[in-house]
Amino acid sequence: MLKLYYAPHTCALATHIALEEAGAKYETVRMSFKAEDQKKPDYLKINPKARVPSLVTDRGIITETPAILAYIAQTFPAAKLAPVGDPYAFARVQAFNSYLCSTVHVAHAHRMRGVRWADEPEAHLAMQRKVPHSVGECFALIEREMFEGPWVMGKDYTVCDGYLYTLAQWLDGDGVDINRTPKIAEHFRCVGERPAVRKAVEEETRELQSAA
Amino acid sequence: MLKLYYAPHTCALATHIALEEAGAKYETVRMSFKAEDQKKPDYLKINPKARVPSLVTDRGIITETPAILAYIAQTFPAAKLAPVGDPYAFARVQAFNSYLCSTVHVAHAHRMRGVRWADEPEAHLAMQRKVPHSVGECFALIEREMFEGPWVMGKDYTVCDGYLYTLAQWLDGDGVDINRTPKIAEHFRCVGERPAVRKAVEEETRELQSAA
Repeated sequence: MLKLYYAPHTCALATHIALEEAGAKYETVRMSFKAEDQKKPDYLKINPKARVPSLVTDRGIITETPAILAYIAQTFPAAKLAPVGDPYAFARVQAFNSYLCSTVHVAHAHRMRGVRWADEPEAHLAMQRKVPHSVGECFALIEREMFEGPWVMGKDYTVCDGYLYTLAQWLDGDGVDINRTPKIAEHFRCVGERPAVRKAVEEETRELQSAA
Repeated sequence: MLKLYYAPHTCALATHIALEEAGAKYETVRMSFKAEDQKKPDYLKINPKARVPSLVTDRGIITETPAILAYIAQTFPAAKLAPVGDPYAFARVQAFNSYLCSTVHVAHAHRMRGVRWADEPEAHLAMQRKVPHSVGECFALIEREMFEGPWVMGKDYTVCDGYLYTLAQWLDGDGVDINRTPKIAEHFRCVGERPAVRKAVEEETRELQSAA
């Protein structure tokens, strides 16, 4: 059975949502970033990058959200979570996910993970100050140039939608008003109402409350 | 025919190499980052992110290196540039490329693109100071945990190899001695000797010289 290692409030939610949307049989392992579970030896054997998500399959372990989302879409084709039979349409899905991973998530990460890229506290503060601008610009670009509507890729829901929803959850903390991008704001509401998304979010929240 | 927009010394070389390895028919358009070609209105119509690479296909435009590399592998299956028929093996290729894109390239980008994440010159200097460490840690992790040998994924050359080669070209400028990772150093030499790689590199260099 598939096993997902995740931590609450991280991009691992995108994988959690995709597994639910796919109707996959899976179990979850909740990690605590506060307790630095991701840096413990047992977890480093699973993912030496000390990050989440990690998806354990019967063949081995997959990391990196765009790779995992494509894998879920390919191995649960009946769920139609990506146009896996059309290389061009699939590439558009992948390009969107890669942008979220390498640009949007990275812009956001400068709020709390500045130590990755500089040692001085003053530099971390400088990074934090720019997050509302850099993340805001990313979402403005998505709204203006990438978002087809009603779903990211147009008429069909794909793995891109759960991933965008996951990152949009962070906007408030990043100092970005989601209503400046009204199409993404409406998308956020629609995705949040999907049963699969509610189930994934509630499971992560419930475990968090019981652990508190 | 496929058309690749690239700029010298950028990650677009990974796509250029993949097109050569695939035996694709394509043309190239050289952009100058010095002249800020990527920010000009005509190019923003092609790629509103103002980045390279962009690959123009007969269906539309694809951006983001991991997405483009997967597309080339899928549309030129005879070149066997990725295990496109095996979702798990393909996911491993994609996870590697995603790590290069979202972590390694991002670490490197803090040397010259700090303005993306902070406004203060002191913060940019702080970022630059950490690049040898952060990029060096990424390559140490690749050497130790990801690199199968003789190619990245093991016995078969894949799109991962040209991508790793492309980013390894930057190590010297990033203040990282490639010989600290001997497997990657040897890989860099082997990839550099491949006819497709030499052709792509020479074309980018030649056009650069003729433009000088």
